[in-house]
Amino acid sequence: MTSTDSAQNAPAKTPAKDPWELPDVSGLIVGVLGGTGDQGRGLAYRFARAGQKVIIGSRAADRARTAADELGLGVEGAENAECARRSDVVIVAVPWEGHGKTLEALREELSGKLVIDCVNPLGFDKQGAYALKPEEGSAAEQAAALLPDSRVTAAFHHLSAVLLQNPDIEEIDTDVMVLGEKRADTDVVQALAARVPGMRGVFAGRLRNAHQVESLVANLISVNRRYKAHAGLRVTDV
Amino acid sequence: MTSTDSAQNAPAKTPAKDPWELPDVSGLIVGVLGGTGDQGRGLAYRFARAGQKVIIGSRAADRARTAADELGLGVEGAENAECARRSDVVIVAVPWEGHGKTLEALREELSGKLVIDCVNPLGFDKQGAYALKPEEGSAAEQAAALLPDSRVTAAFHHLSAVLLQNPDIEEIDTDVMVLGEKRADTDVVQALAARVPGMRGVFAGRLRNAHQVESLVANLISVNRRYKAHAGLRVTDV
Repeated sequence: MTSTDSAQNAPAKTPAKDPWELPDVSGLIVGVLGGTGDQGRGLAYRFARAGQKVIIGSRAADRARTAADELGLGVEGAENAECARRSDVVIVAVPWEGHGKTLEALREELSGKLVIDCVNPLGFDKQGAYALKPEEGSAAEQAAALLPDSRVTAAFHHLSAVLLQNPDIEEIDTDVMVLGEKRADTDVVQALAARVPGMRGVFAGRLRNAHQVESLVANLISVNRRYKAHAGLRVTDV
Repeated sequence: MTSTDSAQNAPAKTPAKDPWELPDVSGLIVGVLGGTGDQGRGLAYRFARAGQKVIIGSRAADRARTAADELGLGVEGAENAECARRSDVVIVAVPWEGHGKTLEALREELSGKLVIDCVNPLGFDKQGAYALKPEEGSAAEQAAALLPDSRVTAAFHHLSAVLLQNPDIEEIDTDVMVLGEKRADTDVVQALAARVPGMRGVFAGRLRNAHQVESLVANLISVNRRYKAHAGLRVTDV
């Protein structure tokens, strides 16, 4: 029954810096690996619509280009390796099944890059969705293990691809939990989230606490089924 | 990158019943095991203030009575076994360390009762809080394993004990994720949450998906440290 305010059990380390003072990220090129999937395409669309330069990555360059052309807004398509090489920030939106293999193959291209993992390792059976348990603890920690020279963060887990892709929806009414080891990196991710109207990036801990954020999607799927909704999350009191 | 609306991967089973049609629970007696701790006391206070009959349970009857007298509002105190026996609904708010032992000893008294586990198994070190991994998967699943004759649910994980206990705060601005196997049981828990002004109970899946809900408290503690807040959660679009 540890309450949420049990922070007194750990040393206070909050820097004096205003946590809402975030960098200007408008000039960064955003790559989306797995950008032809629903979630990747939805994120690509929202960032492009917000004025960000976006490159969709796919295993097949032609599929990436087709998806990019469909989105318009200056979005480009490229094979995954080129997408990674040309981007400043790379969102990993591939299916969990191909996650490790895809990242391992891109280690060099992703070196030095800010990587944002948004993969949710889930299984499905007749009772619905459930959390898978990656050996490394989470998809994000797997990415960090496979990409020692990248700046790995995790975010954008709790979004509805349906809402992201619907052009009639102006605002994405949700907070984005951002996890990572370095404040400079999580600040960039939070700033990127804030580019999308209605969306806000909230720092929510280190990568070792990514598993529960990733697998909470199983719960949101239960919410969606019960309430026929596209559920998201807001963090209160911040 | 499974998006939150991937419900299509599982068979649709949503009953036609309005998910917000909840039973009248105003006559139920609410017991709080571990009611002398911060979280338990805070919950006892909120339910008593909402007009619910509340019994605080503790290993020591005199400590329970002292806590009950401090709260007023007709709250009673009793040794854990008596608290369980006299209550219709029993909230488990004991420290994780004593969770299994406490419940095992109360198996008979909790037989047939609706049990609401709100325990968050967390560890703390100099980097803050992190999720522990109970052998059964979660505190709630441990409770279900130890209490085969009880109706075990899980809820009330993401609340700030500071806010719950502050009498100047009229509304608790947060949703409560409610997990369980039987709709009749989770409906009661949702109705109970709704007794507290500002609070809303939202069904969020089966007990096998309790671990991420319990351990998300580690993330909320990170939020609290960064933003000097008492963070809670709201589910959007429901």
